[in-house]
Amino acid sequence: MELWYTERQTDNLGLTLRIKETLCVERTAYQELAVLDTYQYGRMLVLDGAVQITEWDEFIYHEMITHVPLCTHPAPRHVLVVGGGDGGTIRETLKHASVERADLVEIDERVIQVSRQHLPFVSRSLDDPRARVPVSDGISFVKKTRAAYDVILVDSTDPVGPAVGLFAPEFYAAVARALRRDGIFVAQCKSPYLDQGLIRQAFSHVSQVFKIPLLYTAAIPTYPSGYWCFLLGSKAHHPLQFDEPRARALETRYYSPDVHRAAFALPKFVQDSLK
Amino acid sequence: MELWYTERQTDNLGLTLRIKETLCVERTAYQELAVLDTYQYGRMLVLDGAVQITEWDEFIYHEMITHVPLCTHPAPRHVLVVGGGDGGTIRETLKHASVERADLVEIDERVIQVSRQHLPFVSRSLDDPRARVPVSDGISFVKKTRAAYDVILVDSTDPVGPAVGLFAPEFYAAVARALRRDGIFVAQCKSPYLDQGLIRQAFSHVSQVFKIPLLYTAAIPTYPSGYWCFLLGSKAHHPLQFDEPRARALETRYYSPDVHRAAFALPKFVQDSLK
Repeated sequence: MELWYTERQTDNLGLTLRIKETLCVERTAYQELAVLDTYQYGRMLVLDGAVQITEWDEFIYHEMITHVPLCTHPAPRHVLVVGGGDGGTIRETLKHASVERADLVEIDERVIQVSRQHLPFVSRSLDDPRARVPVSDGISFVKKTRAAYDVILVDSTDPVGPAVGLFAPEFYAAVARALRRDGIFVAQCKSPYLDQGLIRQAFSHVSQVFKIPLLYTAAIPTYPSGYWCFLLGSKAHHPLQFDEPRARALETRYYSPDVHRAAFALPKFVQDSLK
Repeated sequence: MELWYTERQTDNLGLTLRIKETLCVERTAYQELAVLDTYQYGRMLVLDGAVQITEWDEFIYHEMITHVPLCTHPAPRHVLVVGGGDGGTIRETLKHASVERADLVEIDERVIQVSRQHLPFVSRSLDDPRARVPVSDGISFVKKTRAAYDVILVDSTDPVGPAVGLFAPEFYAAVARALRRDGIFVAQCKSPYLDQGLIRQAFSHVSQVFKIPLLYTAAIPTYPSGYWCFLLGSKAHHPLQFDEPRARALETRYYSPDVHRAAFALPKFVQDSLK
């Protein structure tokens, strides 16, 4: 018997993967959560029917959401990750020696527990003494925080279900208040090919709050269209003036100083869509 | 009824698209040829079960295979396209005012005829007086040509069926002979994520023939992994010293001078895989 999982990425488009084993499927308080073992891409975390990470290509997303802002900040000490209960973004954050504390605020405890059980390649980082994992609602957590972080990474699901508020203008304003005076924030921001309306809107919100608003991209095979967008807001430091020697010294598989720079060269139609 | 077409990109991975209409399916002398109309991506050309172009994202592939070498060459006059019977690469080539003649050598006449009938957005260019379309085997054509072209673009199917010889070391040597002394060649070279063995081998062959061998990439949603590789061999001109004003003046939707430069910044694992 051949078992296939198909993610309906839009009404008319899907990605389909042959499945070795279903390791877990459950409905949590917030969403449907599954871990599948695939022949092509290894273990895969799926939330509400959307692939979040796979063992094979998670390094791209996690390196790119993390190292671009952390190499832009001259000495990031305190980092907050909103969402990202699998631990991959924390793993990359802790590669930076200057980081003294990395807080993970995940709303759904089951994502953390299931990742600890089935996805050790990302979740192992959560046992690091510099990591703190308070289970709580990222939106309220950020709202009551003041000038406490150097970098905030919004490693969320797409804007349906629990993540809707993470794409709202009030949230970006709260993020700005939770950052120190030279803080930087990055959020995953969907596909430049499939989600131009959402990207334009989010970029416009962030432009109203941050002095330096920018988009950058990465090629991520298991996300819809294979091409993904990150939205960056910075209070002081420009990401094209980043710490190249520190970037070069990182142990990475996708990220490099050249890739850092190139990620900001947007295809013409994406650049035009922001005007 | 919902009709879906699934491309089995590997044994364990597929892309699936909802179909509006099947415009044509036939077996030619060389391959199985189909044109499907999809809800997501418009009309789509499929050869031997592999998506070649879609109405929605063909501009990315055609702009990137063409403008990178043509903006690197100071004054391309004669251009040869091997394969690419749909006409998209010729369309981009003819955007360069210096081009006096663009020859298309497609082995399968039916690809040209069916494209003329169903894919006018690419095939219209074949009626341009500067385009010549001799139907013939690209490999023999290139082998008997001497110092005749400024740029040769290998816009082929993947290395199965009629295209196998286009990835062989003898072919790259023949391409070098068919080029003028400062000629440039580019070939599509599959996915950096899924085809590293093939890419390493092709890169090594091209390195033995051309003074300047390089890889560059583009994000193409409908190709396996959504991320695609182009292999460039140049006899004299380095693609990072290109004609920026000319590049900026082109009417494009993906390509720009920044995108040209960024395309050569390979992810670390791709760079490492060439060593």
